[in-house]
Amino acid sequence: MDCVFCAIVRGESPASLVHADDDVLAFLDIRPVTPGHLLVIPRRHAVGLSDLPTELGPAIWGTAQRLAGALRGSGVRCDGVNLFLADGEPAGQEVFHVHLHVVPRFAGDGFRLDAQWRFPARSELDMTAEQIRQALPD
Amino acid sequence: MDCVFCAIVRGESPASLVHADDDVLAFLDIRPVTPGHLLVIPRRHAVGLSDLPTELGPAIWGTAQRLAGALRGSGVRCDGVNLFLADGEPAGQEVFHVHLHVVPRFAGDGFRLDAQWRFPARSELDMTAEQIRQALPD
Repeated sequence: MDCVFCAIVRGESPASLVHADDDVLAFLDIRPVTPGHLLVIPRRHAVGLSDLPTELGPAIWGTAQRLAGALRGSGVRCDGVNLFLADGEPAGQEVFHVHLHVVPRFAGDGFRLDAQWRFPARSELDMTAEQIRQALPD
Repeated sequence: MDCVFCAIVRGESPASLVHADDDVLAFLDIRPVTPGHLLVIPRRHAVGLSDLPTELGPAIWGTAQRLAGALRGSGVRCDGVNLFLADGEPAGQEVFHVHLHVVPRFAGDGFRLDAQWRFPARSELDMTAEQIRQALPD
């Protein structure tokens, strides 16, 4: 009801649109990491990956891939591109309508990832892989 | 020639595989952000989004979406998921065979994004959108 992205889809909230088709919209993030930071969303409301109809994935990904190419040729500063999606609040999701970030990157742009990277033993990786495989539907 | 992911595809380098089909492989990152951190790659070598055949996008995305669901049901700690792709060195790409990260997330996992977020004026967003639209192929 109060979904800000659904309001954009309905044309009731402003957005700086870059692309629109029957399945997806793409528009500029209002709080960009870098100039040209885009969001690709499905028109149809879905909170995250678990309720996103699988048939919409190709439209989202394909649009992001085309936009990455456009950014590189647009004059917007873009020497690389990140795709980023946050599924769920613990993953940093803030708007609960699934959206894929397409972020132009350049040296010194101030964007940074921090993590506690480790190098687990192969035996640990294999055990984790087995756990995940068992949870995959056939 | 020296691509470490092509060596995994050929079965010449070890990997903790979670999924394999005709188009893509998924295996555990050897330097995970969190336990269960996966990579989805196309079998066919492509450096990044610009040389990745568009018909492979759905297989990559679809696999990531299925893996996100599996992670949540696997017993691996997973209260959220990030998808992340780095296209080009300025975007943080380190292995030059396109790969989509699927990262299980939970509160206090130590993963953090930092950026110089801004709130540009709508007029600035609209001008940037126009620049990007002009660079999109018809």
